[in-house]
Amino acid sequence: MRIRCLLMLSAIMISTSAAITVGDEGMWLPNRLPEEHLKKTYGFDADQAWVDHIRKSCLRFGRGGSASFVSPDGLIMTNHHVGSSAIAKLSDSEHDYLKDGYYAATRDAELKCEGMELFSLVEIRDVTEKIHGASKPGMSTAESAAARDAAKSEIEKSAKDETDLHPEIVTLYGGRQYHLYLYKIYTDVRFVFAPEQGIAFFGGDISNFGYPRFNLDVAFFRAYEDDKPAKTDSYLKWCDGGVSENDLVFVVGHPYRTQRINTAAHLGLLRDVELPMILAAYNQLEVELFQFQDESEEHRRIATDMLHGVQNGRKAFKGILEGLLDANTMKQKLAIENELKAFVNEDPTRKSEWGDPWKDIHDAIRKTEEVFPAYYLAENRRMRMPTQFRVAKLLIRMAEELDKPDAERLSEYRDANLESIKRSIIATGPIYPDLEQMVLTDALTRMARMLGGDHAIVRAALNGQRPAERAATILRGTKLTDQSERERLLEGGKDAVANSKDSMILFAKLLEGYARPLRKQIEDEWESVEADAYTRIAKAMYAKYGESVYPDATGTLRFSFGTVKSYEEQNKTVPHTTTIGGGFELAREHKNADPFTLPESWLKAEKKLNATVPFNYVSTCDIIGGNSGSPTINRNGEIVGIIFDGNIQALIWDIQFTQEQARGVHVDSRAIIESLKNVYGADAMVKELIGN
Amino acid sequence: MRIRCLLMLSAIMISTSAAITVGDEGMWLPNRLPEEHLKKTYGFDADQAWVDHIRKSCLRFGRGGSASFVSPDGLIMTNHHVGSSAIAKLSDSEHDYLKDGYYAATRDAELKCEGMELFSLVEIRDVTEKIHGASKPGMSTAESAAARDAAKSEIEKSAKDETDLHPEIVTLYGGRQYHLYLYKIYTDVRFVFAPEQGIAFFGGDISNFGYPRFNLDVAFFRAYEDDKPAKTDSYLKWCDGGVSENDLVFVVGHPYRTQRINTAAHLGLLRDVELPMILAAYNQLEVELFQFQDESEEHRRIATDMLHGVQNGRKAFKGILEGLLDANTMKQKLAIENELKAFVNEDPTRKSEWGDPWKDIHDAIRKTEEVFPAYYLAENRRMRMPTQFRVAKLLIRMAEELDKPDAERLSEYRDANLESIKRSIIATGPIYPDLEQMVLTDALTRMARMLGGDHAIVRAALNGQRPAERAATILRGTKLTDQSERERLLEGGKDAVANSKDSMILFAKLLEGYARPLRKQIEDEWESVEADAYTRIAKAMYAKYGESVYPDATGTLRFSFGTVKSYEEQNKTVPHTTTIGGGFELAREHKNADPFTLPESWLKAEKKLNATVPFNYVSTCDIIGGNSGSPTINRNGEIVGIIFDGNIQALIWDIQFTQEQARGVHVDSRAIIESLKNVYGADAMVKELIGN
Repeated sequence: MRIRCLLMLSAIMISTSAAITVGDEGMWLPNRLPEEHLKKTYGFDADQAWVDHIRKSCLRFGRGGSASFVSPDGLIMTNHHVGSSAIAKLSDSEHDYLKDGYYAATRDAELKCEGMELFSLVEIRDVTEKIHGASKPGMSTAESAAARDAAKSEIEKSAKDETDLHPEIVTLYGGRQYHLYLYKIYTDVRFVFAPEQGIAFFGGDISNFGYPRFNLDVAFFRAYEDDKPAKTDSYLKWCDGGVSENDLVFVVGHPYRTQRINTAAHLGLLRDVELPMILAAYNQLEVELFQFQDESEEHRRIATDMLHGVQNGRKAFKGILEGLLDANTMKQKLAIENELKAFVNEDPTRKSEWGDPWKDIHDAIRKTEEVFPAYYLAENRRMRMPTQFRVAKLLIRMAEELDKPDAERLSEYRDANLESIKRSIIATGPIYPDLEQMVLTDALTRMARMLGGDHAIVRAALNGQRPAERAATILRGTKLTDQSERERLLEGGKDAVANSKDSMILFAKLLEGYARPLRKQIEDEWESVEADAYTRIAKAMYAKYGESVYPDATGTLRFSFGTVKSYEEQNKTVPHTTTIGGGFELAREHKNADPFTLPESWLKAEKKLNATVPFNYVSTCDIIGGNSGSPTINRNGEIVGIIFDGNIQALIWDIQFTQEQARGVHVDSRAIIESLKNVYGADAMVKELIGN
Repeated sequence: MRIRCLLMLSAIMISTSAAITVGDEGMWLPNRLPEEHLKKTYGFDADQAWVDHIRKSCLRFGRGGSASFVSPDGLIMTNHHVGSSAIAKLSDSEHDYLKDGYYAATRDAELKCEGMELFSLVEIRDVTEKIHGASKPGMSTAESAAARDAAKSEIEKSAKDETDLHPEIVTLYGGRQYHLYLYKIYTDVRFVFAPEQGIAFFGGDISNFGYPRFNLDVAFFRAYEDDKPAKTDSYLKWCDGGVSENDLVFVVGHPYRTQRINTAAHLGLLRDVELPMILAAYNQLEVELFQFQDESEEHRRIATDMLHGVQNGRKAFKGILEGLLDANTMKQKLAIENELKAFVNEDPTRKSEWGDPWKDIHDAIRKTEEVFPAYYLAENRRMRMPTQFRVAKLLIRMAEELDKPDAERLSEYRDANLESIKRSIIATGPIYPDLEQMVLTDALTRMARMLGGDHAIVRAALNGQRPAERAATILRGTKLTDQSERERLLEGGKDAVANSKDSMILFAKLLEGYARPLRKQIEDEWESVEADAYTRIAKAMYAKYGESVYPDATGTLRFSFGTVKSYEEQNKTVPHTTTIGGGFELAREHKNADPFTLPESWLKAEKKLNATVPFNYVSTCDIIGGNSGSPTINRNGEIVGIIFDGNIQALIWDIQFTQEQARGVHVDSRAIIESLKNVYGADAMVKELIGN
């Protein structure tokens, strides 16, 4: 189940039978904005120059976040919580940059982040014909798939040779279209500024996905080339003023994955199998992390980033589950589904061409749902494992895959991706033995709890020992903690990996023995059926609803739009914006107790700060995980804020858009400048952002 | 699955094939101490007067803890964590006795605890013959069971009429014996003293079930009769000195439940179904409680006792699961099992009489394991529900059961128990709306996560709403929060309950509709098979190993014995005792940070305290949950400490005794006196305990 590319009812379409109007819905491809709708509804003309400028100014931050260039000298803005892993890796027992923040007033104080990759989208090419053309009449399904893979490999290879850019083929609309995205990758990235965690994550886990908010969830990095700040022609200028209620704004970033096309049966799988399993794993680890953190100040520091990640995931998945348990969600889904089914069934040609994809998905789920837990655990999908395990698995798979022709490899091991994989094997960041022991014990316990003590995978994984003993045995016998050993195995390739007696390599191999067949089974019996069925559903939707549709999110650059807008909750209006003064008030209400503790720097600066400056605001822009760090842009293409969250009502956006109460949450650009000036005295940065 | 009464290899027996000697194993009935073994091994003569005196001095604290009289004026000692619910109920936003502690220097400052019950065991009668005699030849199994129930009801009734004591029939050795326990119940209990939580639970969750420890886990209450301190002829005197390593000590209390007779298949059910389910529920609630507590100071206070309960349970169950995942545990169990199987099979008479109870248990598990989650959830076994739900369920069942003859009721609703149930309906303690909302939301989410959104119970429970909405709807519509409404329904009985439109009553009735059939199915297909099979296994064990056996724990008074003893861990000796000075050192190591924060009173008193006084110590006494608060007694029957925990290696004692590393953990009686004197200035109490 790699990230699929799906299709959803468009922003403009009104589903007659379900009677849902979804005003600002849509995560639009940079080359396919709904121009007419924008013109008609907002009187806005999205000309191509405007779109291209913004596209070039935006970045993918690693594999799972968004960012943008905000100065001609490579200055990058993202969220504190997007940069937090990098910031945590730079920290040590003397410097806790995550907790205490950091500001490099001069270039030479900027701190180099190891293993970082920022992706700038240079060009998009439509390669649909080439890939579709590879599949010839008379080929079997398997032969077609192999031919398409070969074409993809060839396209990537020649694009790389031609442009020296990083190629990624993006499957859109369930395989109805393929685009080639060409990225420039920045690998020399340096840490410039972050506020204290106390204000970046003010209100902590309990405020996360909440609103009203008072968070300075922002951090700055800088791209370097040849050891000098990168010269970036395209960057976003800072807006002089700010936004007001009902203003049109755009959010441009990398939403990771939506599942809005999912059938009701597929949502049932999510609700009854996947989400409960993921939540059980998250709950278990969160409880372990709490205990771990209480053991010492050092433990608190080294586990903070992981804990926040787990809490964030737990809250997000729980929100989706809650949405799915609402009878209305399924009712709406079924209404839409039945409308489309009727459309297919009323015409014999459609029926014979598309069959009953809903039933196919339903049947495939019934056939495979029992094996999902084992598959998730063995393939380590959304299940946390120690860093050394992740490295061991990459080394093992790389050794195997490199033996094959490019086109036959698992896609993530094609030549185009090898540099990234190598970097992630070498630059792991610090590895903390105590934390790894806890994580591996937790992982082994999780397997036993989910599969039972007699399951073959569990017996093999535990090897007769208790989880904690087994974890200690494996961690005692691994040298993957040393960079030199990782390099040796990487360079040594297949033979080195085959001959390694490293206990983590052996353990990862052991699990591989179960993971591979399970992956194959899931690919054959579920993913292939699913992909095929959703392609047919996508075709049917396209036939019925026409051009004005957007593909489900795929972790690639998308444009969303909407307006800054208050909403009603429990018969009260939640105002569209908060103020800096409101943050101080809330801290006082909580006696400045954790997690409502304002940092010293803010308490000291209170008199200097203008309490009426807007702090956070909400909009109807259609966002999702992965959008974190996306710049918020006005009609003039200027920065008016940065997305950092959605409210609790927006969690369901993974599977269904609504805009009655659901909102994206932004940091106001004015609060960023106000605090940079008056809390952090970051004058050089302010000057770089807004001039004098 | 009410608490079963099982049988285990005795302390003296050596299982030849498995070659396990279990030195100090045993939770002995007060009228069946292993006299010979005590004499032979420890040169100790447990004469009946000694035993009777101790029995009369000991108490069951509510349904799940232990305590003892420690003065002639009804003064009672137990653990802080045993008394914590009562202490929390006395607290409010002005007085947080749980956190801050309390000392009533005079009688009139002693605070009355509502709804409390202390059980003092006055007499034991062997009623085996009467109950066995009720079952006549020719009766079917069901008729036999009904006849035995009628006999039990009759025995209880006439005992209550005769003595005015509270009767409980205890099923021992899988039904091979029945004893009638007659209790005096103290219902006027007042709170006298507790230290701050910071020292009672020093080290918090991470130290719980750990050793070395530095905890003053002790609290004092007082029994009253006719508004005056109860005159207690039997009470335990304080030892002048203390214990040394290798001293023989006794622990006398109420171990709640062991499962040492369980077959390997039954342990598999525990490992693969029950424990993972319980742990998932605990993990989910613990995470919710953390979020809840962060919301405000008031939330922190009202949820502390629940959080500690959940954490304690989570750690205990996790410890048992870890033990079960150790291949040696199952290996040992199978060795013992095979030895007994061979003994049965080698003789045709034995074989025809006892059959193959191991297979019967195995088959019953296969037949019923799928239904356990629904049964656990609907019957609310180990699953937390709001107080009002508990009350609603009691009211509904009481109304139904009172309609039946005594002998036909669920045993907990027989006349002998009605007063207790009524008290628990009326005296609920404070009910906090926010906490109930969280708990009910959590409960509804748990059902959906465990059973899936389409399960009939989940559909009925949620009624189309999201968990949080549904919880709010139910809680808005209930008046069970008012004592007067609870009294009205209690007095109104069946008609009042039937006519009630209270939303919680309706919700509880809805769940009852599912719970009753599930309970019946589990009783018919699992519990009856299990009870019958274990009776046969018990008989076989008795035939093979003879008299020197003790029954599995049943929540009734038991004597354990052992010696104060250090142990080896990771090639180091863990000394048998810690000192008060060691506690200060540990706090300093952690910079007095939570959970290693010593209370102000201790920091102030450091100079006055004798740092060398022993604080906590460990022994080989065989204890388990429910033993908390048990007095530790020397040969002279004097107090030398109080049990408050077992170390992590002792968690497996639920199912298997070992004494290589496993230890019970005690507060030393000398640390209690030292701190009462020099930290709390509790001179009147010290005088009452030890004289001048």
